[in-house]
Amino acid sequence: MTEIFITEKLKKVLPQIQEFVKNEVVPCEQFLHTKPFIELEKSELLALRQKVKDAGLWAPHLSESEGGLGLSLMEFGQVSEVLGYSPIGHFAFNCQAPDIGNMELLHTHASNALKEKYLAPLQKGEIRSCFSMTEPEFAGSNPTRMQTTATKEGEYYYINGHKWFTTGADGATFTIVMAVTDATNPNPYLKASMIIVPLDTDGFELVRNISIMGEAGSGHHSHAEVRYHHCKVPTSYLIGKEGEGFKLAQERLGPGRIHHCMRWIGICERVFEMMCSYSAMRELETGVPLASKQVIQHWIAECRANINAARYMVLHTAYGIDKQGASAMRVEISTIKFFVANVLQQVIDKAIQIHGGLGLTDDTLLSYWFRHERAARIYDGPDEVHKYVVAREELKKYKVKI
Amino acid sequence: MTEIFITEKLKKVLPQIQEFVKNEVVPCEQFLHTKPFIELEKSELLALRQKVKDAGLWAPHLSESEGGLGLSLMEFGQVSEVLGYSPIGHFAFNCQAPDIGNMELLHTHASNALKEKYLAPLQKGEIRSCFSMTEPEFAGSNPTRMQTTATKEGEYYYINGHKWFTTGADGATFTIVMAVTDATNPNPYLKASMIIVPLDTDGFELVRNISIMGEAGSGHHSHAEVRYHHCKVPTSYLIGKEGEGFKLAQERLGPGRIHHCMRWIGICERVFEMMCSYSAMRELETGVPLASKQVIQHWIAECRANINAARYMVLHTAYGIDKQGASAMRVEISTIKFFVANVLQQVIDKAIQIHGGLGLTDDTLLSYWFRHERAARIYDGPDEVHKYVVAREELKKYKVKI
Amino acid sequence: MTEIFITEKLKKVLPQIQEFVKNEVVPCEQFLHTKPFIELEKSELLALRQKVKDAGLWAPHLSESEGGLGLSLMEFGQVSEVLGYSPIGHFAFNCQAPDIGNMELLHTHASNALKEKYLAPLQKGEIRSCFSMTEPEFAGSNPTRMQTTATKEGEYYYINGHKWFTTGADGATFTIVMAVTDATNPNPYLKASMIIVPLDTDGFELVRNISIMGEAGSGHHSHAEVRYHHCKVPTSYLIGKEGEGFKLAQERLGPGRIHHCMRWIGICERVFEMMCSYSAMRELETGVPLASKQVIQHWIAECRANINAARYMVLHTAYGIDKQGASAMRVEISTIKFFVANVLQQVIDKAIQIHGGLGLTDDTLLSYWFRHERAARIYDGPDEVHKYVVAREELKKYKVKI
Amino acid sequence: MTEIFITEKLKKVLPQIQEFVKNEVVPCEQFLHTKPFIELEKSELLALRQKVKDAGLWAPHLSESEGGLGLSLMEFGQVSEVLGYSPIGHFAFNCQAPDIGNMELLHTHASNALKEKYLAPLQKGEIRSCFSMTEPEFAGSNPTRMQTTATKEGEYYYINGHKWFTTGADGATFTIVMAVTDATNPNPYLKASMIIVPLDTDGFELVRNISIMGEAGSGHHSHAEVRYHHCKVPTSYLIGKEGEGFKLAQERLGPGRIHHCMRWIGICERVFEMMCSYSAMRELETGVPLASKQVIQHWIAECRANINAARYMVLHTAYGIDKQGASAMRVEISTIKFFVANVLQQVIDKAIQIHGGLGLTDDTLLSYWFRHERAARIYDGPDEVHKYVVAREELKKYKVKI
Repeated sequence: MTEIFITEKLKKVLPQIQEFVKNEVVPCEQFLHTKPFIELEKSELLALRQKVKDAGLWAPHLSESEGGLGLSLMEFGQVSEVLGYSPIGHFAFNCQAPDIGNMELLHTHASNALKEKYLAPLQKGEIRSCFSMTEPEFAGSNPTRMQTTATKEGEYYYINGHKWFTTGADGATFTIVMAVTDATNPNPYLKASMIIVPLDTDGFELVRNISIMGEAGSGHHSHAEVRYHHCKVPTSYLIGKEGEGFKLAQERLGPGRIHHCMRWIGICERVFEMMCSYSAMRELETGVPLASKQVIQHWIAECRANINAARYMVLHTAYGIDKQGASAMRVEISTIKFFVANVLQQVIDKAIQIHGGLGLTDDTLLSYWFRHERAARIYDGPDEVHKYVVAREELKKYKVKI
Repeated sequence: MTEIFITEKLKKVLPQIQEFVKNEVVPCEQFLHTKPFIELEKSELLALRQKVKDAGLWAPHLSESEGGLGLSLMEFGQVSEVLGYSPIGHFAFNCQAPDIGNMELLHTHASNALKEKYLAPLQKGEIRSCFSMTEPEFAGSNPTRMQTTATKEGEYYYINGHKWFTTGADGATFTIVMAVTDATNPNPYLKASMIIVPLDTDGFELVRNISIMGEAGSGHHSHAEVRYHHCKVPTSYLIGKEGEGFKLAQERLGPGRIHHCMRWIGICERVFEMMCSYSAMRELETGVPLASKQVIQHWIAECRANINAARYMVLHTAYGIDKQGASAMRVEISTIKFFVANVLQQVIDKAIQIHGGLGLTDDTLLSYWFRHERAARIYDGPDEVHKYVVAREELKKYKVKI
Repeated sequence: MTEIFITEKLKKVLPQIQEFVKNEVVPCEQFLHTKPFIELEKSELLALRQKVKDAGLWAPHLSESEGGLGLSLMEFGQVSEVLGYSPIGHFAFNCQAPDIGNMELLHTHASNALKEKYLAPLQKGEIRSCFSMTEPEFAGSNPTRMQTTATKEGEYYYINGHKWFTTGADGATFTIVMAVTDATNPNPYLKASMIIVPLDTDGFELVRNISIMGEAGSGHHSHAEVRYHHCKVPTSYLIGKEGEGFKLAQERLGPGRIHHCMRWIGICERVFEMMCSYSAMRELETGVPLASKQVIQHWIAECRANINAARYMVLHTAYGIDKQGASAMRVEISTIKFFVANVLQQVIDKAIQIHGGLGLTDDTLLSYWFRHERAARIYDGPDEVHKYVVAREELKKYKVKI
Repeated sequence: MTEIFITEKLKKVLPQIQEFVKNEVVPCEQFLHTKPFIELEKSELLALRQKVKDAGLWAPHLSESEGGLGLSLMEFGQVSEVLGYSPIGHFAFNCQAPDIGNMELLHTHASNALKEKYLAPLQKGEIRSCFSMTEPEFAGSNPTRMQTTATKEGEYYYINGHKWFTTGADGATFTIVMAVTDATNPNPYLKASMIIVPLDTDGFELVRNISIMGEAGSGHHSHAEVRYHHCKVPTSYLIGKEGEGFKLAQERLGPGRIHHCMRWIGICERVFEMMCSYSAMRELETGVPLASKQVIQHWIAECRANINAARYMVLHTAYGIDKQGASAMRVEISTIKFFVANVLQQVIDKAIQIHGGLGLTDDTLLSYWFRHERAARIYDGPDEVHKYVVAREELKKYKVKI
């Protein structure tokens, strides 16, 4: 019953994308087990991306002039859900994090020269990028603590630092790094800037693809620990202005959280389908499917309710961002971030329990999501930070500052 | 961010109703402790109802021609939330259960004679009514089991039976009773009919106002156990057709659940306000309010998220009913019934914990709702029945019948 | 499987007490609805107490020389569970709070004169007492904040203050009041003292029996708001030494929490029986009891597991107190306080859901416990305080002071 | 406060084992990342096992005459907790599943010839074994459904079938297979038998080490899919009698669940330590550790309470088995199975949340347990089966058969 959000444009493209995901993307999932992701990027996934382009569905988040579908955030949210149905959906359509966020950032804040050099090929899917913010030495929930520095000398920045969870660094062309450019600024939110660093810069070290939940991964499906050893880049590689790092990060993360949330809802729907279809098919005794068990019926009902609730909240938030901007929707964004991440975890957990031993194996996608989406409650701000934001806003009404 | 649901009409009347509730209804809550409800109905609440009429806000659920505001269900839902803010809000506006459901039923299915005799004064608030369905001997979750009978002899029904949870029987003018008229019908859903019984009919016995959660209550605020001892009523007191009892009950309950859900959301908002304002005001030490505690902040954030989710789900469901009818929204109605009832219980529980000892006393409304809204997970179908309905629908897609 | 805790003494008396509760106490519960508790105390409950004495089971917590059964705390815990099975069990055996705590306090810290005057008749059940600590103006979770003062002039204290939740003040002979005697002491834990105030002292005002969860109650079943207007009592009415108020309170509360926890487990067992027997008896259709539903089976299993866990934790804690004293078991006491209170609430909630409409009425005891044991998570320290105590202790091992 | 369970023997060996685990086992965990487990078994872990033997702590579950420590189950439970502290603890001491269960089975039910050939080297750690029961085609929660057959012809069984989750098949010397020997027996519990199959038997196929939660593993750390293609083994390889398969399985699983539960509690304690130490060390700002956050304190307190509850329940159950046998403790065993598995999952989840990004990586053991102990709620009977067992027993008291 979200038809109130189905625009004319969506009536046209959403079914197309659903069909495409079902017929073209899902069959490609089998390749995930056959070779490293970075090789898939050059073979099966390259072919898949070409099919997306051929179907006229490429980069749905971009404006039509940039080669996209020209969707509002509320519209794109619904597309993103459909893509989230598959772990390779967003990649196939070139709207995967962190590239999608970087595209938005460059689009709005990069110089024309940078746009031409980095944004254009990124939009076309010719290169990949990454985003380097979190540092192992500091709690991510307080992003103002940071040791990476960009020291300006003449027309160059010299960057030194240590980052991790730089997603997709393996095989990327450039990163956007968050580095302190004004260490003595009394306002911690004005200390840092965002700067492009091509990954072939001397001194850039990809220490390792971190082994996460049993897999180091590769290519876009990897999260790197990296070091910047006196990396020299032109000052023109600055994005926005000096000291705007946090402002831009905030701008980047707002819609980014909508993207994540809608992708999670896509996962929820896929997992929910698996839950229902498996319990309908798997028999306890001949003619007695798992679905006959009341406890499983209740899980199905509770998951259905929670997924619906999650979708409504996210679409209303996206609608609000379209109307009033991300900043006005700050609290709503925090609300959905923790709400949807927890629904996702619940749905996956119940689906695994229903699948029994099979749910533990890598023969289904459940294990993949169980392992890799535990992160949903942590990245882009842990639950605890977002709950704080919501409570802070409510308590303001009563003149309490927390 | 439910502005998508704010119609022109609501832009006008919603603020009026909010003001009225705040300025006129809430101050009347103090009277709840001073005398039995049935006496309040004749004094302070009578005066309050007159003020509602004077303000042109009477019976907002009715069409304009019937003296109401002519709202869609989606619009009325939002009014109902505002009225739910106070335990006497719906009564003040003459849209309290079970009368509102009876009005809908009579409006659609009663003869003109019955409408004139019973509906008209009910709409004006001159009389009250009740609804007699649940029987103590049978589990309410299987409504087809019923011992009350209406035996037709000539132009009369003779009704015999035993019912309880006949809300508001104390002081009511008539009840609509569900009774078996066709005991041998093989389809259990075709056995019963709905018949009006004036409460002054010989043989009608109000056994007791059942003591519920510490209070027997009186008047509209009571739930009676009643017996029908060979009550004789004209066959013209039948509503709809013979055997349509369940059909009408279903029709009555669909929107009725929306009403309940929106009323609960009104309670949630009031309780949420109490939660925030008390934790902002109450000090652990000088200058250190309860609100400074992170655990309380998390409760506030989680309640906020859940209330928002609840509201979105209910309004989308109401919108769907307006567009497609209650029957098409059957599953959505079941979804909100259990979802919102559980949110309500969570919000009340946290608010009590925050209020500490005070939350246990009757010095605030928390105790009232804690006691009387535990029923929300039971009446109009317990959680378990509604979860079954949702699961049944999902599993149908996989050819499983549960 | 707690037989490891069944001593020779318990093998003898526990079955006797179980029989007595079943045959004598439970049948008296019906009187709770017939007259105010304060009148029952003089009639039916007086007779019941005489039967307890006649059976040689009186005051099981007292030493044999004081007329009790001479049980260890671990033994008494198991008796307390059996008494907790009925809401009048502890009262019948004269080991109800707050009298039992007061007896312990006077036994250990009162002068012989006070013992003779107050303790002796209290032990015999000839009088009742109360305990006056919490103040409405301050959060109970910080007990050092207190406005009630006892000013010494010559051989008298003059007491002024405002207290609430003074349980059983209605009809009691004396209270033990916590009052500030040394306001300027820099250590907030050394400011207060405990002093006996006979309730017929001039200036003692029982403002009201607070209406709690729908009932003001009376006699022992009431919680009073009281005021001390310049109440004059001899300095010899001091218990322990001046400034020892908090030390004594702590001493009093440790075993007191064991008593509560074991009483709660008694309630849990009674409610669990109701849950099982009702779901075994109540039919959805002929021959299909509620117990056939898997969800109800799961509730039964989960409640069983949690009650067992609760009992083990409490008995081990009681055993530890017997061996090492309450102070060494401080953290374990906090652990059971929040753990058991939450199990209790869960068990009651599920039992009500299983009973449906009946569970909401006062026709069973469920409503009584639902209403009056919501307090379990609040009195004697809310959950939040006890969780803090446990975490503080664990974190000490890592040199963190919280 | 489980000192009531600390026997003289434990006072001696438990501290030794704790020291050994800390000083010898934990430092070996680093090797888990360096080579496949099956290679570790021949190098670092072989050396570690020798150290265990040298320390006189080998195979603590065996009787002294068999080279073990001669512990009761209640004593061994406490040892098992200590070993569970490390993912290689049980393996180091040769009491890892499934070998420990197979040792018990062979000890009680195998012929002397089989004992000499298979049990003796198993006890010495010279060989490994596996256990082949679950079949991919059937829900494990109904173990009577099975397609694997053992057809007797003369002095041989010919075994055909398909199994999975045959833990440790990779590198094992023999398996005990559950196969149908009497397909027409009307009692489904009398159809199957247990038979030893050496893994070098013709027709035995190790199809694959199943990739589980991202890892196929190897050696003892693997779970195989296997096929039996007309495997021929002597009838003397039968364990117990024909048709006793389920009886033996039940016997094997009872104490086996105690072993798992105590191992899980060991994991819980290790994870709890990580949770506390990390929150004590990790700073949000200089001097402000994560542990200063109230929400984290509550998690610590709740985990502490739940782990304690789990340990009490398991030790009381072990004590009961020692006194009365596993069969008398059947319900208690089911109770701990689901209770402890859920506590484990909660503790791991909270620890990950506290560790943030680090908790997702394989740089700590949290990811290992998060991934591999999700199975705890599934293997050896899913939660749902054990809850059913508990409820069935309780409802028997009310004459309801479920």
